[in-house]
Amino acid sequence: MNRILKSEQDQYEKREWTRIINCLSGFKSANLVATRDQNGVSNLSMISSCFHLGASPPLMGFIQRPHSNKSPRHTLMNIKDSGFYSINHITEDFYKRAHQSSARYPMETSEFDLCGLTEEYKEEFGAPFVAESPLQIGLELKEVLDIQQNNTHLVIGEVQVIYVEERAYRKDGFLDLEAIGSLCCSGLDSYHKTQRLARLSYAKPNEEVKELSLDGE
Amino acid sequence: MNRILKSEQDQYEKREWTRIINCLSGFKSANLVATRDQNGVSNLSMISSCFHLGASPPLMGFIQRPHSNKSPRHTLMNIKDSGFYSINHITEDFYKRAHQSSARYPMETSEFDLCGLTEEYKEEFGAPFVAESPLQIGLELKEVLDIQQNNTHLVIGEVQVIYVEERAYRKDGFLDLEAIGSLCCSGLDSYHKTQRLARLSYAKPNEEVKELSLDGE
Repeated sequence: MNRILKSEQDQYEKREWTRIINCLSGFKSANLVATRDQNGVSNLSMISSCFHLGASPPLMGFIQRPHSNKSPRHTLMNIKDSGFYSINHITEDFYKRAHQSSARYPMETSEFDLCGLTEEYKEEFGAPFVAESPLQIGLELKEVLDIQQNNTHLVIGEVQVIYVEERAYRKDGFLDLEAIGSLCCSGLDSYHKTQRLARLSYAKPNEEVKELSLDGE
Repeated sequence: MNRILKSEQDQYEKREWTRIINCLSGFKSANLVATRDQNGVSNLSMISSCFHLGASPPLMGFIQRPHSNKSPRHTLMNIKDSGFYSINHITEDFYKRAHQSSARYPMETSEFDLCGLTEEYKEEFGAPFVAESPLQIGLELKEVLDIQQNNTHLVIGEVQVIYVEERAYRKDGFLDLEAIGSLCCSGLDSYHKTQRLARLSYAKPNEEVKELSLDGE
């Protein structure tokens, strides 16, 4: 095995080091976070750090890089101003357009237009959804935790509404993300489809886990 | 599309609701967190919430469910006591054994033994690694942030050392997780292999993203 030491970070070119570290956590969720500012201009941001925080209440988190006047984070500004945002799964059909949204566009332009994606407003929810996405989640901001270690921000929101393609839904509540083509990503720029090995039974001491059907049986 | 409303949560059976919400963030990293207590007893915990927090310094986070005397989180206790832990990628060869580690075993037993995985100590690092894993990361605890919204805990650690199989390493620092067989998971119990679509170029305004080689060229 190769060994890479933090104490030898100086021996790596800065971008090489960044690529290595960005790969460490493993495969990541690939989502577009959509918001709207006070002037009605929408914003899209590719986010690979969305994670589950709890089911009751239904909470999700994601990490936003440091916000400053020099490097303003439009997504974070809009979420704080409006209190709402949406998280939208990415599929093979539009992952290149989604990746394009990470370019540094000016605040007064909408990444929806610039990247060729369609904004969709539903039932007066306070943020746009990505029409192309098969799983769209509307969230209300609960808290922004500033992480002192490196000035990043943990954005915590409560799920208000979920729109999901019918064929994802399995009998026991499991959502088959593979059936709707959700992708994952790794590092800064690699996108991947998935292939299921199995669903596994709830683990108990002294009982071997077994494979379940897609419906959890 | 199906619409699922938070305001209608009561209409869902509790476990069904939990399964739905656990699927929302998309595909998740599949890692084993390994620790050791003051008596030298090791502990293994399946964690699907590891995420990248920053490259310089190299920080990673993961979410630990609420700790209480009734529901003690051995992993969190060990990390706080020892200050060290490891994060280890899971592959097809041992994902069932990894899933088994999530059963509620007593504190004085080691999930390594009970699940048939091999603990490995290297160069006096303060936590065990999972010998079967092709990517092992040794971290030092930096901070535990308690999340008031639902009493979960965000564990933040700094990467001290990385052991990675040679064949993962690409010329520009990208680690090819697919080459070493790292898995991802979805929901509470579904495990997946991946299949790369492409690496994409760094996104810039007025320039279409293009596919890169595995070496980033």
